[in-house]
Amino acid sequence: MTTVLPARKLKVGILGATGTVGQRFIVLLETHPLFTIHALGASPRSAGKPYDQVVRWKMNAPYTKAVGSLVVQACEPQPFADCDVVFSGLDSSVAGDVESAFLKADIAVFSNAKNHRMGANIPLIVPTANPEHLTVIEHQRAQHNLKYGFLVTNANCSTTGLVVVLRALQDAFGPLSHVMVTTMQAISGAGYPGVSSLDILDNVIPLIDGEEDKMETEVAKILGSVLPDNSGFRALDNTVVSATCNRVAVVDGHTECVSVKFARSTDPSFSPPTVAEVDKVLSDFQSESQLLGCYSAPKHPIVVATQPDRPQPRLDRDTHGGNTVTVGRIRPCPVLDLKFTLLVHNTVLGAAGSSILNAELAVAKGVLKARE
Amino acid sequence: MTTVLPARKLKVGILGATGTVGQRFIVLLETHPLFTIHALGASPRSAGKPYDQVVRWKMNAPYTKAVGSLVVQACEPQPFADCDVVFSGLDSSVAGDVESAFLKADIAVFSNAKNHRMGANIPLIVPTANPEHLTVIEHQRAQHNLKYGFLVTNANCSTTGLVVVLRALQDAFGPLSHVMVTTMQAISGAGYPGVSSLDILDNVIPLIDGEEDKMETEVAKILGSVLPDNSGFRALDNTVVSATCNRVAVVDGHTECVSVKFARSTDPSFSPPTVAEVDKVLSDFQSESQLLGCYSAPKHPIVVATQPDRPQPRLDRDTHGGNTVTVGRIRPCPVLDLKFTLLVHNTVLGAAGSSILNAELAVAKGVLKARE
Amino acid sequence: MTTVLPARKLKVGILGATGTVGQRFIVLLETHPLFTIHALGASPRSAGKPYDQVVRWKMNAPYTKAVGSLVVQACEPQPFADCDVVFSGLDSSVAGDVESAFLKADIAVFSNAKNHRMGANIPLIVPTANPEHLTVIEHQRAQHNLKYGFLVTNANCSTTGLVVVLRALQDAFGPLSHVMVTTMQAISGAGYPGVSSLDILDNVIPLIDGEEDKMETEVAKILGSVLPDNSGFRALDNTVVSATCNRVAVVDGHTECVSVKFARSTDPSFSPPTVAEVDKVLSDFQSESQLLGCYSAPKHPIVVATQPDRPQPRLDRDTHGGNTVTVGRIRPCPVLDLKFTLLVHNTVLGAAGSSILNAELAVAKGVLKARE
Amino acid sequence: MTTVLPARKLKVGILGATGTVGQRFIVLLETHPLFTIHALGASPRSAGKPYDQVVRWKMNAPYTKAVGSLVVQACEPQPFADCDVVFSGLDSSVAGDVESAFLKADIAVFSNAKNHRMGANIPLIVPTANPEHLTVIEHQRAQHNLKYGFLVTNANCSTTGLVVVLRALQDAFGPLSHVMVTTMQAISGAGYPGVSSLDILDNVIPLIDGEEDKMETEVAKILGSVLPDNSGFRALDNTVVSATCNRVAVVDGHTECVSVKFARSTDPSFSPPTVAEVDKVLSDFQSESQLLGCYSAPKHPIVVATQPDRPQPRLDRDTHGGNTVTVGRIRPCPVLDLKFTLLVHNTVLGAAGSSILNAELAVAKGVLKARE
Repeated sequence: MTTVLPARKLKVGILGATGTVGQRFIVLLETHPLFTIHALGASPRSAGKPYDQVVRWKMNAPYTKAVGSLVVQACEPQPFADCDVVFSGLDSSVAGDVESAFLKADIAVFSNAKNHRMGANIPLIVPTANPEHLTVIEHQRAQHNLKYGFLVTNANCSTTGLVVVLRALQDAFGPLSHVMVTTMQAISGAGYPGVSSLDILDNVIPLIDGEEDKMETEVAKILGSVLPDNSGFRALDNTVVSATCNRVAVVDGHTECVSVKFARSTDPSFSPPTVAEVDKVLSDFQSESQLLGCYSAPKHPIVVATQPDRPQPRLDRDTHGGNTVTVGRIRPCPVLDLKFTLLVHNTVLGAAGSSILNAELAVAKGVLKARE
Repeated sequence: MTTVLPARKLKVGILGATGTVGQRFIVLLETHPLFTIHALGASPRSAGKPYDQVVRWKMNAPYTKAVGSLVVQACEPQPFADCDVVFSGLDSSVAGDVESAFLKADIAVFSNAKNHRMGANIPLIVPTANPEHLTVIEHQRAQHNLKYGFLVTNANCSTTGLVVVLRALQDAFGPLSHVMVTTMQAISGAGYPGVSSLDILDNVIPLIDGEEDKMETEVAKILGSVLPDNSGFRALDNTVVSATCNRVAVVDGHTECVSVKFARSTDPSFSPPTVAEVDKVLSDFQSESQLLGCYSAPKHPIVVATQPDRPQPRLDRDTHGGNTVTVGRIRPCPVLDLKFTLLVHNTVLGAAGSSILNAELAVAKGVLKARE
Repeated sequence: MTTVLPARKLKVGILGATGTVGQRFIVLLETHPLFTIHALGASPRSAGKPYDQVVRWKMNAPYTKAVGSLVVQACEPQPFADCDVVFSGLDSSVAGDVESAFLKADIAVFSNAKNHRMGANIPLIVPTANPEHLTVIEHQRAQHNLKYGFLVTNANCSTTGLVVVLRALQDAFGPLSHVMVTTMQAISGAGYPGVSSLDILDNVIPLIDGEEDKMETEVAKILGSVLPDNSGFRALDNTVVSATCNRVAVVDGHTECVSVKFARSTDPSFSPPTVAEVDKVLSDFQSESQLLGCYSAPKHPIVVATQPDRPQPRLDRDTHGGNTVTVGRIRPCPVLDLKFTLLVHNTVLGAAGSSILNAELAVAKGVLKARE
Repeated sequence: MTTVLPARKLKVGILGATGTVGQRFIVLLETHPLFTIHALGASPRSAGKPYDQVVRWKMNAPYTKAVGSLVVQACEPQPFADCDVVFSGLDSSVAGDVESAFLKADIAVFSNAKNHRMGANIPLIVPTANPEHLTVIEHQRAQHNLKYGFLVTNANCSTTGLVVVLRALQDAFGPLSHVMVTTMQAISGAGYPGVSSLDILDNVIPLIDGEEDKMETEVAKILGSVLPDNSGFRALDNTVVSATCNRVAVVDGHTECVSVKFARSTDPSFSPPTVAEVDKVLSDFQSESQLLGCYSAPKHPIVVATQPDRPQPRLDRDTHGGNTVTVGRIRPCPVLDLKFTLLVHNTVLGAAGSSILNAELAVAKGVLKARE
């Protein structure tokens, strides 16, 4: 299986390029075989200056001189008109209008922002969970009369890790009726400066504004199906999710303690899958991103840890380049059916990495193409 | 309400005096109006030397010169024969036999170790949850033919915080059928040297050996009732507990995310209590330790946080001297009935503080007396 | 020695009451025998509302209902006109003008801000190092024609710990020609939200803007002498200080590694003091705040740690209520004469605690009085 | 410049393979073009079992199945007889005798342990500082009548970062008379389990046993010269080093605050180099490892940070694969001549990485060869 390459490298624009997600986009795209960084967008305050002068770089890998010398643009369609694709790491306070403007300007956009996620014909895609939702792009193009443009969103970082595993379980053992999840989330999820050190050193913050609601609503859309006419999505309506979100003193990597109940569990003849069965199903799970040979696709969407005290954020977040979900502690749940703990790299698969892998999928499926 | 004082200060022995729990006992007892530190016990390696020479002191308050000059004893009954009460902070590898020997030697023992917790006529007491279980002491004394001696244990640190709140809910709204709890536990719970810094800095450990089992079994005994003949306890048999325990980078203070379902919830006419009702019930909850005016009793066994992002370990663990449980984020649970987050100081109420408050209760109830 | 009490409790105003230093003032003053909190000042945005509604409380001890219900004032002299003394925890962006206005309005001000520290007749006082500098207040009053008012500043938090020890060494062994200091400073020194968690978790920040310059200049004024006519200060002019300041992942407590050279060291007949001599001199050091029986005065301005791996911030910062400096690792320096490590609680002695102890000194010396 | 390759990949043995340094050796060697992992040695307790069964893996990159299935050997020469080179990550409690035995058995050893560092004809080499010291190997071979064997040590992790920069300064501006260094060292330097989390969370430990002495003595040997007859080394005798070593809450990467004085500084005509001159000298510094095209040689032995608040361990430790030293904050020192802050990755360049780069140098110079 080899990476599907476009006719030429696609020109990439990055919106919100000075922020945490934007910086991660730059790190992941600088050596990417399909994409080349072509334009950077940031706030009006930064526009007109070289990236080097305006960024407060916080990644632990450097950016190239070529990127550093790019003149930052305002986040408007015109300066990005010759980009084949735009990745948006914009803050939700501005992302809604900006991304709509880009869509209308016939530019393909992959967005990390929450604003359009629940839009009726906007795919909300975790690349190793529901890549088939990309088919709704055609409906978008028809609606807005577009040739190249479309808008695809990816999920909240905590949702992302969860749905990959839920999808694998659902495919193997049927629908889930109940999902309980308690998260321990990394500080990088809040951007920079984000979480004050006085709030997190020797501490836990038991609330992340809006996060629980996102987890409880996004799951149903992502695990739902595409409508027969491709005009939108049918959300799961029988899966109840209860989320509790905490912030802990971890730099990168969200840990999630999950319990699930299978819909068939009310059937007296049903016995929940054994730990060995779950282990095998998760380990063997494959998504279209593997099957299509996407460059950033992890070898396995899910890795089951072999040590009993894993996954751990510091040790497991970078597995397969941060695009895999690591699962451990699979065991029966006395209250629901099954318990396990998962880990997702919140700024790779949980943010920029999802967008990029989504774009690779769109290239492989022929939806994202070089402008002619 | 004033503190009940014995005829004279009771002479206290501390077993495991060089360990983390033992050091906490010393800090809490040095200025205590009922107790005076009389003897210290530690491993054979330390016995015979002044405490000053053998302790590696890790508390952030100093010990007195008087304590420092006490000659450490072996953990055998003889050198503690004139103690009115002994507090045990022994490691579970030795606590079982040592505490049995002290009991047989007619010495009153309050133990933090897990060894005897599930013993048939051994009270497992969280002082602000089930002080009435002290009545079984009479049966112990009859069995072993004791005048002064008895053995009372306190619960695992994570169990402790949980049962105080469950007791208040159960008293007000009836039995609980299901309890789901996910903990984020402090490093001090593992003693010294305990958790390696390489395992916890920028990390979460998703497993604490044996902890989940303790939480799932201790709850039923603590929230159960004393048998009519006072010979032991009847555990709850219809409450299912599912625990998931994690270690996080916090020095002191266990945070627990809890969801509960009420037994009456299957009754169509039952509606779960509102957030305001739960808030009032928890805030108003009183235990015998308050009613009897015990010295270390917190003003309120449970404090409901008024800020939406609380409780937080660093800010709330020391409320009422670390003997209260702080609850926040009370809200409905989409899967069970009710969700909330609680915080307990694991080395105060969750360990040494419980033992001391249990001893104060025993004094107030006339069970623990000065030797004549 | 007993605390000197004024005729009645002095009415206290606190400027910058919602900030980190302001909150610390409230904690330290709520139970103070000389002072009673009378008025709180904060930004115009907060003025006119009860403190309870505008503060984001971050101390680990609660404030009283009385404080919570105080209506916050603008930071202007008028609403503080009946205060006997005002403590300023204002940010340096506004402190300069505000404090000048209060001084002119004949109000006694003790300030933490840096703005007026180097003013010609403004005492810069670390209470356990140079309390005699208070005598310049008379000159201030004469200059501005004041009856009650004056302005006293305290030093930068890192300077504070250092000068207490340098003063003791200088008194015993003569002037210092060279001082090298490398600090590891706590995050609370930067206020709230202050240091981003992404900058300090698993990290060190090797720069604190302006801090090295403050340390290098403040030392000379503090260790200098009052001019014969009490009109100002004569700074040390033969002591060279070289400071390097780092931020580390510690909540409270600045650690400083110090090397010093004595001026007499160039004299061939001089041999530097031994470790035992230094230990004794530091342990025996007494300041006027002890001699005058000030309430907050630590029993010892300097405590010499007995364990070889101390001082440590988490274990030693609260010694004597955070108003002492702990010193350890006293040993010869191969390059200069003497090396040691010190610890100072940066938000107690290093900030609010110094102001309060300075005010107690001013009461004891009869300079600060109740308004008639 | 291309990497010099031996005739075939050299077979590598790793002693102490289950420890922290040993695990790092495995990560760095698994994909190395010159070396192939051939044998693993560990304690008798582990010997005879597959590596997979005995290692508690703590690196954040996995090891291969091939390594996992290697049967662990006792640390004796016989099972390593067909290794071309052995890397020792042994603890100093056993390293002395074991490494001597390997040397006598004609096996080339590169050791991280401190035991032989100060041996008369044992090179103590930091590869980007004093590779020319390898010439003493001939004398070793003559002494012990060896064909393939020799013993090379690398320096303490803190020394390593320091001497690279001192060497560059000394080469450009002449000998240094005084060096003051205060370190803030990462927890990984103490191995696993190493530092207790209770000692380092919200804390600084101001003492690392033996570390200051190592820094003060190793510098003189490393910066010294080879004796004319190649029989050993002439240490610097006019450079005084004063070291203060602290442990901070950082996973990897030692930060060092350094002040230096040049020997010529006593000459009235000497003016210390400017910041710009120092910046250029450090940035331009090249070592033999670059000139010989060694595979692991960093592009630059020293990188001068361009941001004023750098170097920072989390952001800079991985530059050039962890084999470079990052320097920042270059400025005049009021007490000595020049101050700066440096960062070294303590488990790469400061440990396993130095050994491997030393071995690459030995291959490039023809000293380390494949057995025939």
